[in-house]
Amino acid sequence: MKFKCSQITLTKALNIVSKAVTNRSTLPILKGIFMEVREDGKLRMVTSDHEITIEETIDVSETEKGSVVVQAKLFSDIIRKLPNAEVTIEVENGSVTVRCLNSQFSIVGLPADEFPAVEIISDQQDGILFEKSVLKEMIRKTSFAASVDESKGVLTGILIELLSDSVNLAAIDGYRLAVSRKAMVNLEEKNVVISAKIMNEIHKILSDASEEEETVKLILRDKNAVFAIGNVKVVLRLLDGEFIKYRDVLPADSNIKIKVSKGDLTESIERASLLSKEGKNNLIKFAIRDNILTITSKSEEGNVKEEILISKEGEDLDIGFNAKYVLDVLKAIDDEEILMYFNASIKPCLVEPLEGNSFEYLILPVRITGN
Amino acid sequence: MKFKCSQITLTKALNIVSKAVTNRSTLPILKGIFMEVREDGKLRMVTSDHEITIEETIDVSETEKGSVVVQAKLFSDIIRKLPNAEVTIEVENGSVTVRCLNSQFSIVGLPADEFPAVEIISDQQDGILFEKSVLKEMIRKTSFAASVDESKGVLTGILIELLSDSVNLAAIDGYRLAVSRKAMVNLEEKNVVISAKIMNEIHKILSDASEEEETVKLILRDKNAVFAIGNVKVVLRLLDGEFIKYRDVLPADSNIKIKVSKGDLTESIERASLLSKEGKNNLIKFAIRDNILTITSKSEEGNVKEEILISKEGEDLDIGFNAKYVLDVLKAIDDEEILMYFNASIKPCLVEPLEGNSFEYLILPVRITGN
Repeated sequence: MKFKCSQITLTKALNIVSKAVTNRSTLPILKGIFMEVREDGKLRMVTSDHEITIEETIDVSETEKGSVVVQAKLFSDIIRKLPNAEVTIEVENGSVTVRCLNSQFSIVGLPADEFPAVEIISDQQDGILFEKSVLKEMIRKTSFAASVDESKGVLTGILIELLSDSVNLAAIDGYRLAVSRKAMVNLEEKNVVISAKIMNEIHKILSDASEEEETVKLILRDKNAVFAIGNVKVVLRLLDGEFIKYRDVLPADSNIKIKVSKGDLTESIERASLLSKEGKNNLIKFAIRDNILTITSKSEEGNVKEEILISKEGEDLDIGFNAKYVLDVLKAIDDEEILMYFNASIKPCLVEPLEGNSFEYLILPVRITGN
Repeated sequence: MKFKCSQITLTKALNIVSKAVTNRSTLPILKGIFMEVREDGKLRMVTSDHEITIEETIDVSETEKGSVVVQAKLFSDIIRKLPNAEVTIEVENGSVTVRCLNSQFSIVGLPADEFPAVEIISDQQDGILFEKSVLKEMIRKTSFAASVDESKGVLTGILIELLSDSVNLAAIDGYRLAVSRKAMVNLEEKNVVISAKIMNEIHKILSDASEEEETVKLILRDKNAVFAIGNVKVVLRLLDGEFIKYRDVLPADSNIKIKVSKGDLTESIERASLLSKEGKNNLIKFAIRDNILTITSKSEEGNVKEEILISKEGEDLDIGFNAKYVLDVLKAIDDEEILMYFNASIKPCLVEPLEGNSFEYLILPVRITGN
């Protein structure tokens, strides 16, 4: 096996395929990258950690057919540190030689046939086309709200909901719900759930993928899903189980509505949370009075009072929150102003954009006592 | 006690004084910052961790005399997160109120008289004036070579050597020696040793100090030294003990001299060290033959060969090094080309600039065996 390729192309490809390399697997070969120079003179690279498999195919030159598995970390480190010039890779008797200008490495290769058989991933099926930037944004706006508790099953995932006129992503961990919507025409209504951790890897892969690729194709199959971004294909396992009917959780109406600057609210809560300690659920209190939202918080070390101008419709209200849950939501929002809907101090707060419903967040309150 | 001050001025001052706040002290009050509004209407802040004491005096307005100690971390976090506007600090009945626009904090103050008495640090004595940038560079070029082993006493420090015509900084940990020299006229020859860890804090304080301050004054006293940078004064304990006579270690002459690109050498050693494992002292081998320096290294995972063009005077040589010790030296050097002097494979290597002697590094070799 042999090929030549520019150092920069190979480095970029390795950055992407390395994302499926595991250090936890019981199969040592999965710490490696399967590399295959094919009949058509292209280099195919595959990595897998059971949950996610990444395949990338790149153009290389002066090829000789063959395959090998290389240690992912060592091989990536070597390629990344080579000068920006042409790299020659040659495999002979299980030994992988890397040459670039005045550098020559010879490292131990692993037998390619020990790598679990990986089908060539096809993207020739029907799927949903996303703009890359849109899918990245939808993942960022929802994944933080998924449960990080591995025992929570389907709640560790993000629901991808294909409706006839939109695609919705939703995540819920019992304390908050995040929904991101995008108008899109789909042929078939369908729901799948994908691990939020893996969706965050997809987010990174989308960030690292060639800027020339502007679209991502999502193909839903029986047990898995495929994201195809140009010459990169990612197959991932779907999570089993019924996702919470999140629409039933969203409040139908509200009797208090405020409009507030997202920046002011974020900064005030960040300051207030300096005096809201972990042990106390990061408790901060909102007092909504006419057009002033007062946020207070206290600990043994002191107390803080923050005032923010708002415009309000409806009654006054006192309600408590875990500062972290509110901040997570505010950080996921890019809008300068937001609407917040309340009903009572024991009912969740709904956060929406000034117009439309491109996102919806629901935050559970913390019960507050007398003082 | 009361004063007003811009948030940005107060934040910068807190960044500097926080550097002497310890979390290890047995005296809880030393986790605090002593703040005193003085007769002259200035705010004096003091922190100390026994080894280093920092005092900073800043101009404030609308003052009322008094003093208090605040929790360093909490107070700094609060001030840093306030909006960029005027901040009012007021102390009443042991409670410290912080006001800024629509934010109001009230935190617990600690009694100022529990803070260890700290003399007002005078900079009205004779001392050595450094350009700030020069002192920073001299610290950076030497501190990495000091021992990090606390049991090594004076070797954990940097020697500051005042000669009639120059100031030299030197550090040595038994494996390498670093010397940085600056021509400077001094009235009195004198040597002191200061902990390298504290010199690194001085480096940070110099980086954080106002850009208007271009000079640093070093005053040497009996048991301690003072660095004065404008309104910031740092007192630190001197290390006891006799520093190694480093001049005796520097080789008088050499029979091999090479000139090499620092960048090429750094990159080649970084690549070679990918295959030189910790357990093996990061061993890399230099083979000097005519005008080629070949660097090799190997581990169970493979081997590497790097070739670099050099110009050489003297014989051929094979010599081994710990890659880390050579890289530390190369990273401290800004020159594009360097001179390396050798005598034999068991004698140390001397690194110098092409001209002058503004720095000298000595690196001990690692004994190499047959293959």
